Formats: sequence, structure tokens, C-alpha cells
Amino acid sequence: MTAERTPAGVDPEIREKLEDLRRIARAGDYAELPERVAGMHPSDIADVVASLGPESRQVEILKALSAEVASETLAEMEDYEHRAELLTALDSKRGAALLRELADDDAADLLGEMEPLERDRMLAALPSAEAGEIRDLLRYDEETAGGIMTTALVAVRTTATAAEAIAEVRRQGREVEDFYTVFVVDRRGRLRGSVALAELVLADPAAAVAALVEPLPAVARPDTDQEEVGRVMGRYNLVSIPVVDESEVLLGQITFDDVIDVIEAETTEDILRLAGVSEEEEVMAGWLESVRSRLPWLTLNLVTAGAAASVILTFEEVVGRWTFLAFLMPVIAALGGNTGTQALAVTIRRIAIADEIRPHHFRVVWKEVEVGLLNGFVLGALFALFALLWEGGDPRIGIVVLLAMWANIIVAGFAGALVPTLLNRIGVDPAVASSVFVHTLTDLVGFVMVLTLASALLG
Amino acid sequence: MTAERTPAGVDPEIREKLEDLRRIARAGDYAELPERVAGMHPSDIADVVASLGPESRQVEILKALSAEVASETLAEMEDYEHRAELLTALDSKRGAALLRELADDDAADLLGEMEPLERDRMLAALPSAEAGEIRDLLRYDEETAGGIMTTALVAVRTTATAAEAIAEVRRQGREVEDFYTVFVVDRRGRLRGSVALAELVLADPAAAVAALVEPLPAVARPDTDQEEVGRVMGRYNLVSIPVVDESEVLLGQITFDDVIDVIEAETTEDILRLAGVSEEEEVMAGWLESVRSRLPWLTLNLVTAGAAASVILTFEEVVGRWTFLAFLMPVIAALGGNTGTQALAVTIRRIAIADEIRPHHFRVVWKEVEVGLLNGFVLGALFALFALLWEGGDPRIGIVVLLAMWANIIVAGFAGALVPTLLNRIGVDPAVASSVFVHTLTDLVGFVMVLTLASALLG
Repeated sequence: MTAERTPAGVDPEIREKLEDLRRIARAGDYAELPERVAGMHPSDIADVVASLGPESRQVEILKALSAEVASETLAEMEDYEHRAELLTALDSKRGAALLRELADDDAADLLGEMEPLERDRMLAALPSAEAGEIRDLLRYDEETAGGIMTTALVAVRTTATAAEAIAEVRRQGREVEDFYTVFVVDRRGRLRGSVALAELVLADPAAAVAALVEPLPAVARPDTDQEEVGRVMGRYNLVSIPVVDESEVLLGQITFDDVIDVIEAETTEDILRLAGVSEEEEVMAGWLESVRSRLPWLTLNLVTAGAAASVILTFEEVVGRWTFLAFLMPVIAALGGNTGTQALAVTIRRIAIADEIRPHHFRVVWKEVEVGLLNGFVLGALFALFALLWEGGDPRIGIVVLLAMWANIIVAGFAGALVPTLLNRIGVDPAVASSVFVHTLTDLVGFVMVLTLASALLG
Repeated sequence: MTAERTPAGVDPEIREKLEDLRRIARAGDYAELPERVAGMHPSDIADVVASLGPESRQVEILKALSAEVASETLAEMEDYEHRAELLTALDSKRGAALLRELADDDAADLLGEMEPLERDRMLAALPSAEAGEIRDLLRYDEETAGGIMTTALVAVRTTATAAEAIAEVRRQGREVEDFYTVFVVDRRGRLRGSVALAELVLADPAAAVAALVEPLPAVARPDTDQEEVGRVMGRYNLVSIPVVDESEVLLGQITFDDVIDVIEAETTEDILRLAGVSEEEEVMAGWLESVRSRLPWLTLNLVTAGAAASVILTFEEVVGRWTFLAFLMPVIAALGGNTGTQALAVTIRRIAIADEIRPHHFRVVWKEVEVGLLNGFVLGALFALFALLWEGGDPRIGIVVLLAMWANIIVAGFAGALVPTLLNRIGVDPAVASSVFVHTLTDLVGFVMVLTLASALLG
């Protein structure tokens, strides 16, 4: 009984157990491990194993644990980039034993991360029926419904009674780890709806399944994007969603726990891309991988920021006369950039959360312009006041600052909302491209406004 | 049967139905509505209602629909800021009728958004037992486990047999909308574990529940933060988590669908705060609310960006002599800022996803320095090359550019990883404060490096 353990931080008792485990593994007392991990959750064991390099020690641990525990541990190490290598390091027989313990979707995920040759070696060591099932799953893109679904599910015929259905559920249920939904299919395997297990238990045993079947608010096709699957399951509060082919034949299901992982992964992607980090960069990536993921974007950024700033080079004479401009420009460009980021973040989240049913995406662009009108005036006036005081009260400087800041902030809000909305409309994921474009634009507008106004007013 | 409807975009048929609904509501044919919405999901109806201002029309729609449909529609309008006003606009009797149809957590959420006086008026119109339950829930902070839990759950005694437990589940289940877990309690209501409904159905009817009960990997206390609840449920793949008091007495449960909403809301918060938007700004906020939420941050930003750039004012003489510096500084500051944002985003997500079990948070700081060493050198060399070519081959300019860019990018990576890690260590949510601090620092380092190097080398 572990009810003592509250999620507000890790329970001290568990923490101690983890430390204990670490000590034993470090000392190499692998024989003691199976007993020590009894009752621990695979997610917790996975964290200990992931933190205990080198790889050779991790492999020893996986060898020492029972196939059941070792396989679940490996399945829960999903954000650890080297886990496929651990499986590779095991001999085929042990590797196959671990894979057989796993749900087919977890096994396919693991195999999908292996080198093709190693993957074939592992698949060859599996019984052909299981290898075939996993091969079928591997055909799907890993970011689609097909790539995250499991073929393990419980389905009954429309023609059964509640009592027959429960008997059928009992029979099939032994093979399926967790199930919450009983699907209802016709004799050709075509999905006809679902009946909640709770409903089946509550129903009169003689009632016909056909009378209990409920329509499904949504189904997925194997090629449906996983983000879309997550959105729909969240929208309709679904504990699982069926995956069907073009003829409505039931292929598999996706359960809520996979979708929680998907939502976390997709929002992480949104945050990272907005910040200019490649979506392929794992949160636990090594430094060289991080360089590869970020340098291209920074280089593009150098080119765009350099191009925007190069307008300053054509005004060198004005800058030489009014060196104060060298102070104004980066501040006005920075505030424009930050306003643009605010509008981008709100719009991108709005797009991610909302859906096509709600119209008026463009209304948000107008809203951002309104926000910019007011914010830009306040910030422009504040900065103009400062500039006036510093530069001895020349009102022309105040006007340059006010107008440049105001215009840049309006443009920033407008572009920050319009660009992702337009990209989304033509089906392009808005995060990275929007950010580069909006920041180049706000730099450029900031510099050009300051320099042209200064040329015109100050001479 | 709506299996036709694939989640890849909204099905044309549904879209047509929605348009149809809009037309009818706009025309004021409210009497036709109940028939038209039959079979539609409340989430879809909610979207139509939310898009159909003014408020008076929305209220008419809610009056025309059956209490069951109207209440679910209102419950699904959770990200529509005016929904509490819609409930307020109904008379107490109709309002109470809608609240009675809702699960207690949804009713409490709605009432929590109302003005205190209006809330009391609605509660007074409810039967006292139901009002009492909802009042209990309203006592909890809305971002805690207590604030998102429902008291509707199914629990059986440890002493029952599987058959008795199923009979008990049948009895209690009629009151509980969806349930996936059967909790097991002792005679004083203390939680002893759970038994999956599927297990209960699969078990020998004579088997004792005590033999089937499984320990719970985690429980929540009423004051556990909702983000922590989401993290634990995701970590352990839980379809529901029980909420217990200090004596282990079972108070309620939180189900996966609430947690999907929490994860979406919390990651949205992370993105918005990183971008300098207040977490209180609803994604669908009006423009004045947006100004209120963003202007304070932009003003702070004006002060910090101005302060960092003011170092340029003390070097006006150098800038006058080398106007080229006015071009270099914003580019080098911008690249530093972007590098800082990358490091911030990765570190903040790492903190959000990882947990205290994994040690070595500080290792990531060193990693960012390594990344900065390489990225900074490459970007510095590229920009130095450009500067050299433009400025006619003076090697001193190349050295200024290379060193300033390189140093700024190393500092950006270091600060971008260190600041959120430190803030997290002392228990402060890292997003907003980190971003202001890191960008001020990278501005300052960029300007100071360029100006002091230029003073020293160029004179």
C-alpha cells in the first residue's frame, strides 16, 4: 500500500528506495536488484536506470531484472535517447523476451528507434505472428494515429446480449492490459459504435448490445496527425479513440495515456520552435545534438538581423551626427520584438487550442492592432519623455521617439497575429517561420522609423 | 452513427450542421433548436453558442435548449470568458436546474466564475445537500487537486466479494457519469487501494475484493497543485487519481479528461509567460484585458532595455567616430537574446517535464556553455568575416566582432540555463523573471563588449 505517497514532490520513502537502488547498482550487486524493485513503478525504475551510466551498467541492470520488469522499464525510458542501444546490446533471445512482454505499440516504438539491421535481428527472434503485428505498426509514420495506436482492444458483435458480451470481454480482456471501452463491430469487423464497460456491467444481462451501443463522437484514420488525435480526445473527453480504415474496419485504438504524452510532446515542440530550437532536439539531448539543432536557426537569424540592421549602414552620416540614435534604435527594436513575441505566442496558442469550427480568426489580428495602438502610445510617450529629458528638451527628438516606438509596436502586434494566422490558413505550422519573419520586420521597422524620422526632422 | 467523422479537420457534414444551427439561432427560431442539436456533442454546440454574440442571444439559446443539453453546453464553454454572465442572466430556477444536471466539479467551476452575490443566489436555489457539496468544493483553490476533483466516484469495501462489489458498482454507478476505477475503502472510509473495473468483471465472482485490490502508485491531497497532479497522472499513466485527506479518507477523484485540460492550460501558461504575457490573459481575451496583461511587462522591459542600452550613451564619442558600431551592436545583442531564449526554453521545458528524481540539473548549465562555445565561435567568425569585408579589411574590427559575439553567446547560454535552474531550486516559477533577466544581460554584455573592445582596439 503506497497511498502515503503524495504527488506533491517525491515521497521521502520512495526517494530513499531510489537511492538504495542506485547504491546497489553502482556496487554491481545486480543479483539483489529483482527483490529490491518489487512493488516499484516502472517509471521510477526507468529514472534510476537512465541516471546510471555508463551503458554497460544499464545493460547489466536490464539483464538482472525479470523480463516483465525490464521490458516495462525500457518502455518508460521514452525520453532517454540511448534506450534503443540498450536493447541492441542484449542478445536476440533476451531482447525478444523483453519485446514479447510489451504492448505492441510500445514494442513498435522501441524497435522504431533501433538501427534497421538490429531491428530485423530482433524481429527475426520473435514468433512470426507477433513480429508481423509489430511490422504492421512500424509501417505507419510515428507521429500519426497509426504510429501511436495499439491493436490490443476488446470488441464485441452487435448481435450479442450484454451477458454474452461480458463473457466475450472476459475472454479477450485477459490479453489486453488496460481497457476502458468495449468496441462494437459488425460481422465484417466494421466499427458500429462502442459501449462503456461500466454500461455493460450496469445493463440487464439479457439486453441486446445493439440497444446499448453508443455512437462515437470521433474516430481516427491511421494517417491522422497525432496532434489532431490529442485535440479531438481532449475536446470530447475520450478515454480512447478507435482507429479505422477507409471501409470502417477497426484497426486499433489509442488510449488517453498515449495522448497525454502526445500533448506534452506537441506543446514542448511549440515552445521550442517559438524559441528557435529544432523540434528534433530532445529535451535531454547531448551538446553536439543541440549545436546541430540550433546553429542553423541562429545563422539564419544572423543573416536576417544583419540584413535588417544593414539599413543603419546607409545612414552612417546621420548616426555620426546624432550618436544618440545608436542608443534609441536597439531599445525600440527590442520593444517591437517583444510585442511581436507576445502576439505570436497568444495567436499560436489560440490556433493550437481552438479549432476550425470557430470562425473569425482574423478578428484577433484587429485586436492585436488595438492593443498595439494603446501599448505603443504609452511606451512611446514614456520613452519620448526620457529622451527629451536626456537630450536637453529638443521636442523633435521626442517626436522621433514617440512615432518610431508607436509605429513599431503596432506593426509588431499586427504581424505577430497575422503571420501565424495566414500560415495556418495555408496549412503551414506557424511556429518557427513566424518568429523569424516577425522579428526581422520589427527590427527593420524600428531602425527605418528612427533613421528616416531623424533625417527628416533633425537633418 | 457518426463514425464517418474523422478528426483530421471537421467533417463537412458536421460543419454543415453547425452552419445550419448558426442560421437558425441568428434568425431567432429558438423553438427549432432542441430538435436540431439532437445527437450533437456539447463541445460543438458550445462553440456555436460562443461564436453567436450578443449575450442576449446566447441566453435565449440556453433557455430554448433542454436543461441537460444547456448545462453540458455551458460546461464545455470553459475558455469563453463570459460564460458565468450567461448563467447569471438566467433566473435562479432555470440556473439551478442547469447546475443540478452538471457533475459537481463542473458546477463548482461555473459558480466559481460568478460574482459572489450571484453565486449565493444560485446556491440558495439548489437543494441544500447539493449546494453543500458544491460549497465544499468551492473552498479549494481552483488550481489545486481539491479545485478540480469531483466527489462522484464508485467505491467498494475491502470485505466484499467480486460479485457483491459488482452489485455495489451497479448501484453507485447510476449516479456517476463515467467511471474507470473502483476504489476500495475500509469501513472508516480510508482508501485501501483500487480495483480496475475490468479486473472485477474478469474475476471469479466469489473472489474477495481484498485479494484483488491493487496499491495506488499515487494519491493527491486537496491542496496538491494541479500541475503536479497532471505530471503524476502522466508519469504513471493513471486514468484517475484519488484525493484523500490527512487520515487517508477518500474525498474525491480526478479523471484523465480534467487532467488533459490542466496540461493544456499549464503548457499554455509556460508559453505565454516565456513570451511576457500574463498567465491571467485568457487566450480569447478582449483587447483591454490584453493591454492590462501585457503593458506592465513591456514597461519593465522598456526600463531594462533602456538601462542596458544606456551604456551606449557613455560611449557616444566612440560611436561618433566609428558609426559602424551602431550597426554591430543590435545584431550582436539580438543573437545573444535569441541564444538566451533557446537555452531558456529548453531548460524550462526540462524542468517542467523532468522531476526531482533525476539529479544533475546543473549539468545542463555546463552543456549550454559548451553549446555556446561552438555556436558563438561559428556565428562570431561569420559576422567578423562580413564586417571585415565591409569595412575594408581592418583586422581589428574582425577581432572586436568575433570576441563580442562569442562572449555574448556563451553568456547567453550560461544565463539562459542557470537562471531558471536557480529559480526552480528556490521554488520560484522560472518563466517570466528569467526571460527579463537574461535578455537584459545579453543586451548589456553585447553593448559593453562591442564598445569596450572598440575603445581599446580602435581608439
